[in-house]
Amino acid sequence: MPKANAFYAQSGGVTAVINASACGVIQTAREHRDQIGKVLVGHNGILGALNEELIDSSKETQRAIGGLRSTPGGAFGSCRYKLKSPEDDPREFHRLLDVFKAHNIRYFFYNGGGDSQDTANKVSQFSRKMKYPMQCIGIPKTVDNDLPLTDCCPGFGSVAKYVAVSTKEAALDVASMCATSTKVFVLEVMGRHAGWIAAASALAQQDAGDAPHIILLPEVPFRQREFLAKVKSTVKQRGYCVVVVSEGARYANGQFLGEAGGAKDAFGHAQLGGVAPTIAQMVKDKLGMKFHWAVADYLQRAARHIASATDVEQAYALGRAAVEFALDGKTAVMPTIVRTSDSPYRWKIGEAKLSRVANVEKFMPKSFISKDGFGITPRARRYLAPLIEGEDHPRYERGMPVYVSLKNQQVPKKLAVKW
Amino acid sequence: MPKANAFYAQSGGVTAVINASACGVIQTAREHRDQIGKVLVGHNGILGALNEELIDSSKETQRAIGGLRSTPGGAFGSCRYKLKSPEDDPREFHRLLDVFKAHNIRYFFYNGGGDSQDTANKVSQFSRKMKYPMQCIGIPKTVDNDLPLTDCCPGFGSVAKYVAVSTKEAALDVASMCATSTKVFVLEVMGRHAGWIAAASALAQQDAGDAPHIILLPEVPFRQREFLAKVKSTVKQRGYCVVVVSEGARYANGQFLGEAGGAKDAFGHAQLGGVAPTIAQMVKDKLGMKFHWAVADYLQRAARHIASATDVEQAYALGRAAVEFALDGKTAVMPTIVRTSDSPYRWKIGEAKLSRVANVEKFMPKSFISKDGFGITPRARRYLAPLIEGEDHPRYERGMPVYVSLKNQQVPKKLAVKW
Repeated sequence: MPKANAFYAQSGGVTAVINASACGVIQTAREHRDQIGKVLVGHNGILGALNEELIDSSKETQRAIGGLRSTPGGAFGSCRYKLKSPEDDPREFHRLLDVFKAHNIRYFFYNGGGDSQDTANKVSQFSRKMKYPMQCIGIPKTVDNDLPLTDCCPGFGSVAKYVAVSTKEAALDVASMCATSTKVFVLEVMGRHAGWIAAASALAQQDAGDAPHIILLPEVPFRQREFLAKVKSTVKQRGYCVVVVSEGARYANGQFLGEAGGAKDAFGHAQLGGVAPTIAQMVKDKLGMKFHWAVADYLQRAARHIASATDVEQAYALGRAAVEFALDGKTAVMPTIVRTSDSPYRWKIGEAKLSRVANVEKFMPKSFISKDGFGITPRARRYLAPLIEGEDHPRYERGMPVYVSLKNQQVPKKLAVKW
Repeated sequence: MPKANAFYAQSGGVTAVINASACGVIQTAREHRDQIGKVLVGHNGILGALNEELIDSSKETQRAIGGLRSTPGGAFGSCRYKLKSPEDDPREFHRLLDVFKAHNIRYFFYNGGGDSQDTANKVSQFSRKMKYPMQCIGIPKTVDNDLPLTDCCPGFGSVAKYVAVSTKEAALDVASMCATSTKVFVLEVMGRHAGWIAAASALAQQDAGDAPHIILLPEVPFRQREFLAKVKSTVKQRGYCVVVVSEGARYANGQFLGEAGGAKDAFGHAQLGGVAPTIAQMVKDKLGMKFHWAVADYLQRAARHIASATDVEQAYALGRAAVEFALDGKTAVMPTIVRTSDSPYRWKIGEAKLSRVANVEKFMPKSFISKDGFGITPRARRYLAPLIEGEDHPRYERGMPVYVSLKNQQVPKKLAVKW
């Protein structure tokens, strides 16, 4: 195949390690200059391709690209934007091919979750239909850990570590003070559909009775009576109770807990809430216990300072593998993590067809959820524990982590038509 | 002075480094076994003295005591409990002296904030009045950094580092996504009366225009119009806006922002709120911008994993100095941090009378707050920057920080009377 340029883009919610995948892609492409010209990166994800806003990564120094490995967020901009189906409206796909042709792009690397893998698959199908030769490779990324066919998703291990460490630390705080102060602490974490992140908080447990005492997963319908009984018995036994709740925790009828209060502000608007304050208020109202709550929100998925070394390594390896797949002539595939051993933890790179990855969500299996629904099983622990292993401390200067910011210089536009 | 035992207790909200002070006290006392017998530690702070629940720290190994230096929370239990004044009700003070006499305690180390220094001072006065020889030394501690006469308070540097790092990381996340997603991110941090913690978020700024773009301090009355105008102009200019708000932010009439919504839940109870969601909702209602918010709560003050090495070192040094002060025959004093140079940062241990520390709160001086009230001055930056310097990563095992838990074995009670 003659030498061509590559397109890379970050899609959807960013993570502490998505830039490590970018680093893997760009460094590996630079090692194969005979086959890959420039890596052109979409400014704000796929929108960069549609708008012909293509960042020229060759303008960045080796040092800057190397620094991506330890920089959180999306260094080139990401976006929440789902392409229409080419059957419904082929204009976006035609536009993408126009841009790719104009810039001699014949490698397409798309770094994202389920929707993004679907997009990569459609780009592959469409380019084949249009007889435009292009290798389309997906690179997995999602803090939610909800992609199928890969043992885990880059981004998850680091948020898991953040949540486990934060739970352990906050629990020590609450335990110190519970005799005269807060009895119940509620931490809200991400996970609208799947409870992987909340489940990872269980890695804070070392001995029986350690926090978190209750984990509320979206996979388990919320039962208020059982929940309150467990809070009560935990406080009686331990003096305090730590609850970790997924933002997607819901009642059996599907209603989210965060919506359930029905509270209005002074202007009559629905309370924006969050599920942690809702749960905390429930504990206060029904049990009369003093509470505190925290909502980690973006802090958890951006927390590069407490990233899992395993996660960083896998994110990088998947970026590298994506380029190697493309150079091997593969298309419409995604490199995956294949676990070969739990303990010691061993993994290798595998391969999945995009058509089998796209739009499939992986929930916590029943065998991972404890009988009472408020915790995880030893099997889940065996799965989760290796993913947070290892520290990859960023470099610090004057007390702050050193995160790179790129030049992000775009190549000149070649198309007369704007999108 | 004949050999006697020491009493040590942790008081009020715990921090990431209060145990480092405990480590300093106990290790230094162990170096002076000729003068100090056992360090008996109050179980749950001063309540441990009242209830004669005295933890025998001599039962702990050197390794366990050493581990306190890198363990957050209060390893012996802390409490929120303010002694009555001996003039109003001397019974508690008589009880304390009874317990101290029974256990041959003639050193009193009390590790806490303004209230605790007041208590230490009163214990000193009362014991003198009762002609019971006792060295009473306060050890400063408060994440709020609101004690006078010391350059800073142990606990603050670490929460400052946590907040600065978290702000920087979350800002990178928001910046990546702002073209199509969240425009305004609000982080709520501690600080009910003084804005030191929120101010420290400014250390995330490296270049002009960096986040946080707006800091809301309790010292500056909240003006909605100016705030919204600044959010709007920041989003216009930068594409996004990061706001860090003190939990104690308030209107000119003194009403807390967190109370202002007046929202009720379905049961008619006042919304527990938090100021971050209130601010976020205001942005949504008035500017129609997509928002996210986080409430760090206990996570910030427990975050030993991102502690400031400067803070850990000072916390330890103050514990050590307290014992040395006592051995020098001092009483009714508190060791302090005296800054001798900003850059390079240099400090030494000083000394303040408890009577001058007790019940005085140190707010952000006007010269530290920017003219528009939404940021800090270069002078504030010079003050704050050294406090977060240095990393003191805890040891990790299987991906989790190793925090010690003590035996906390109590000495047998000697008094017939229970409290």
